Amino acid sequence: MSEERPAVAVSKTECEMAQIVLPTHTNNHDTCFGGQIAAWADICAGVSANRFCRRPVVTASMDEMHFLRPVKRGMVVILQSQVNQAWSTSLEVGVRIVAEDPVTGERMHCCSAYLTFVALASDGRPTGVPQPDFEGNVEWERRGREADARREARLEMRKRRKAGI
Amino acid sequence: MSEERPAVAVSKTECEMAQIVLPTHTNNHDTCFGGQIAAWADICAGVSANRFCRRPVVTASMDEMHFLRPVKRGMVVILQSQVNQAWSTSLEVGVRIVAEDPVTGERMHCCSAYLTFVALASDGRPTGVPQPDFEGNVEWERRGREADARREARLEMRKRRKAGI
Amino acid sequence: MSEERPAVAVSKTECEMAQIVLPTHTNNHDTCFGGQIAAWADICAGVSANRFCRRPVVTASMDEMHFLRPVKRGMVVILQSQVNQAWSTSLEVGVRIVAEDPVTGERMHCCSAYLTFVALASDGRPTGVPQPDFEGNVEWERRGREADARREARLEMRKRRKAGI
Amino acid sequence: MSEERPAVAVSKTECEMAQIVLPTHTNNHDTCFGGQIAAWADICAGVSANRFCRRPVVTASMDEMHFLRPVKRGMVVILQSQVNQAWSTSLEVGVRIVAEDPVTGERMHCCSAYLTFVALASDGRPTGVPQPDFEGNVEWERRGREADARREARLEMRKRRKAGI
Amino acid sequence: MSEERPAVAVSKTECEMAQIVLPTHTNNHDTCFGGQIAAWADICAGVSANRFCRRPVVTASMDEMHFLRPVKRGMVVILQSQVNQAWSTSLEVGVRIVAEDPVTGERMHCCSAYLTFVALASDGRPTGVPQPDFEGNVEWERRGREADARREARLEMRKRRKAGI
Amino acid sequence: MSEERPAVAVSKTECEMAQIVLPTHTNNHDTCFGGQIAAWADICAGVSANRFCRRPVVTASMDEMHFLRPVKRGMVVILQSQVNQAWSTSLEVGVRIVAEDPVTGERMHCCSAYLTFVALASDGRPTGVPQPDFEGNVEWERRGREADARREARLEMRKRRKAGI
Repeated sequence: MSEERPAVAVSKTECEMAQIVLPTHTNNHDTCFGGQIAAWADICAGVSANRFCRRPVVTASMDEMHFLRPVKRGMVVILQSQVNQAWSTSLEVGVRIVAEDPVTGERMHCCSAYLTFVALASDGRPTGVPQPDFEGNVEWERRGREADARREARLEMRKRRKAGI
Repeated sequence: MSEERPAVAVSKTECEMAQIVLPTHTNNHDTCFGGQIAAWADICAGVSANRFCRRPVVTASMDEMHFLRPVKRGMVVILQSQVNQAWSTSLEVGVRIVAEDPVTGERMHCCSAYLTFVALASDGRPTGVPQPDFEGNVEWERRGREADARREARLEMRKRRKAGI
Repeated sequence: MSEERPAVAVSKTECEMAQIVLPTHTNNHDTCFGGQIAAWADICAGVSANRFCRRPVVTASMDEMHFLRPVKRGMVVILQSQVNQAWSTSLEVGVRIVAEDPVTGERMHCCSAYLTFVALASDGRPTGVPQPDFEGNVEWERRGREADARREARLEMRKRRKAGI
Repeated sequence: MSEERPAVAVSKTECEMAQIVLPTHTNNHDTCFGGQIAAWADICAGVSANRFCRRPVVTASMDEMHFLRPVKRGMVVILQSQVNQAWSTSLEVGVRIVAEDPVTGERMHCCSAYLTFVALASDGRPTGVPQPDFEGNVEWERRGREADARREARLEMRKRRKAGI
Repeated sequence: MSEERPAVAVSKTECEMAQIVLPTHTNNHDTCFGGQIAAWADICAGVSANRFCRRPVVTASMDEMHFLRPVKRGMVVILQSQVNQAWSTSLEVGVRIVAEDPVTGERMHCCSAYLTFVALASDGRPTGVPQPDFEGNVEWERRGREADARREARLEMRKRRKAGI
Repeated sequence: MSEERPAVAVSKTECEMAQIVLPTHTNNHDTCFGGQIAAWADICAGVSANRFCRRPVVTASMDEMHFLRPVKRGMVVILQSQVNQAWSTSLEVGVRIVAEDPVTGERMHCCSAYLTFVALASDGRPTGVPQPDFEGNVEWERRGREADARREARLEMRKRRKAGI
């Protein structure tokens, strides 16, 4: 990584969003509609990306949302996002999505999302982004390595597809 | 306060919700529609009330939302709620609403809301709620006293109105 | 009050809005979500404020919404607003919210809201507003006095809070 | 008309709904989206139909919405509905839709809608509806005759279509 | 029809839109809200009109939506639109709306809508539209004749109303 | 694949959904909000999955949405989905998302999405799904192989993550 890129502490990019699953968010199984969770994740991750870049950002990709369990109507949904890794002109934000039972308080992990963003210069073109400062946190460094692996897998997949495999 | 009421630490009721002001949230001045902020505050406060009571809750009143400054489209809105005080069958939740400039990171207090909730027993009737444990925090104790004052003012206002003043 | 302020008949500011509580408006108790009622009240009151000022207006505060009874899905909600009182640069609009049973026609008062608005000049700054003409109506004059009392209570509360009481 | 059908005064079915055209309601010409006006008209007319029948009602048809002029963002929209005519198992509600300039107060007729409803018995089947009492009002009687003409035109059109003309 | 008007094949204007009836789209009978179907039809027809004119278009009228049967929550709704006929400065789009049972696959015709659009020149005024090329298709020619009949009926109705019949 | 699984022609699972990007769908760059595209893709893919399984389905994952170019307000969005591949208890649906310029008619590929679904038996548990019949179409067979590759990559990634790489 270039030395000139300023470093931003990933802890400064943490963002939290609580929601209650209301009838307006549900599908026909009385559980939260997948696309709604994706929409919330996009907003929450966008705030983290903004805090990292301090520039306008646009979502470049949304990948790997595994809905581990359905989230029933009435549940509280907690989304927590943080920048995982940044490359020259893009960055990955991870969103951990937890469902909280409003009566028992029990929390269950229900989905993780990884979104990449591109920062825009004033002319609307992609521009360089800061580098992450993991602050020596082992967990955050691991997330950075995993983000690198996901990026590699995405590039590999793209190659395979082009090669017609 | 009755000794039998279990005490719940107010710190356990903290809830945060980030939002981005999108075109769908704006009024015709390109700023966030007041009713939208009220709707977000109701959700965020409802989560705090739920965490305090661990029962279904309904909003009994929403009072004193002063919109100190308009919140422009594109701003990040951070809502932070916490139980301020609880009485025999009701509780007050305070919501602090801050606007964060996505580019400069500057934060401005733009609104405070105080909502009261009633907890419901399984028969749908109001039921007793826990008492707050301020954990010796001077700021939280002050909020509790202010909530008591707001409650008094509400009761006084109601009396005046009945007396036709 | 200054003699130069034009007088506007409060009857000219009456506004009515009917709604039906649909699934999209409900919370998880199958009743109308409080924040939705607040959003409707903001629109309805905004029309009254507009009719009084004939200028762009912004909501300055929303206070004292007491949800007297839950409004079930399927009920008709009738919001009726009217300017209650105006001061040099602000005005109060009252909104009476009634639930009408679609089958029996029975009407129940379910909420009252008081919103204050500020009128904006072309430079976006607050500007003077007309004075209300109560047209000799005793009920409207009473509402004007109550609005004055609410304003006093708000100012008093603000003072108390600053003094740390 | 059968003498057994109770008569309901059409004045009792009047319903009003005010809306402000917000960005969320607009199409890409910065004017109110036609489908949004149709949705508001359906709600407003549904309240009138309910007040006439005092039973659950469903929309059977929506016809002849002529958008006479576009309604710009920021305009106030006033919908006024009233039962025009009723036949053995159905009724027609007329909705007059007016745009009000919030600054000048000028009102312009922008759309009229005619919706027919069917009342449902407890078994979900169509059931008889009351007959309208025009209270000797010449204007309301004219609307009733026009509704009869529209009904005839609809039946005629259906015949032509079946005959393949 | 003037020879100078370019001809556009009506097959090029076909547009399809699938939707699932979610709780957010339902009325209080657990069926799709009529106004929602009208809103979807307006979008779908607007795409067809755009494909015909290749200019900005605005909805001029929406007529004759007969809701033949209620569409239950969970059903798939398929809207299919196509330009039926065009006159000097306006055009009619037909929308066929079918409900598909997601489990049995059974399809039922539930509504037809006819919308007229006007194309706008860059100065915002109505401008000429192409003429339809029915490509020798007998069914499409029949739809064109029916659109002509509907237009005549609309003009006739307007005359009758003016004459006070 | 087991011989007992019935085969369903993938052509029967094709679904199309047209949308117009309205102000309510936009982010603050006047382009379509990523989460909105994800929500539309979830609906469109859900219809394809339903047509394949003829049972209730739930979204299990949404992966790899690359937003290749922003979709401006006013553009027509065309989503086209089709079942790509099915395994014992799950299936992948591909959604191709194209933006169509309403004036020039130019179409640009703007996003592809791959969603996996699980079919539910009447007890709410996952149940077996049919196998796809590619009908000898080389392009569809290629999509099936790519879906297999994506599945492998997902499983590999999961393993790597568990191994802490």
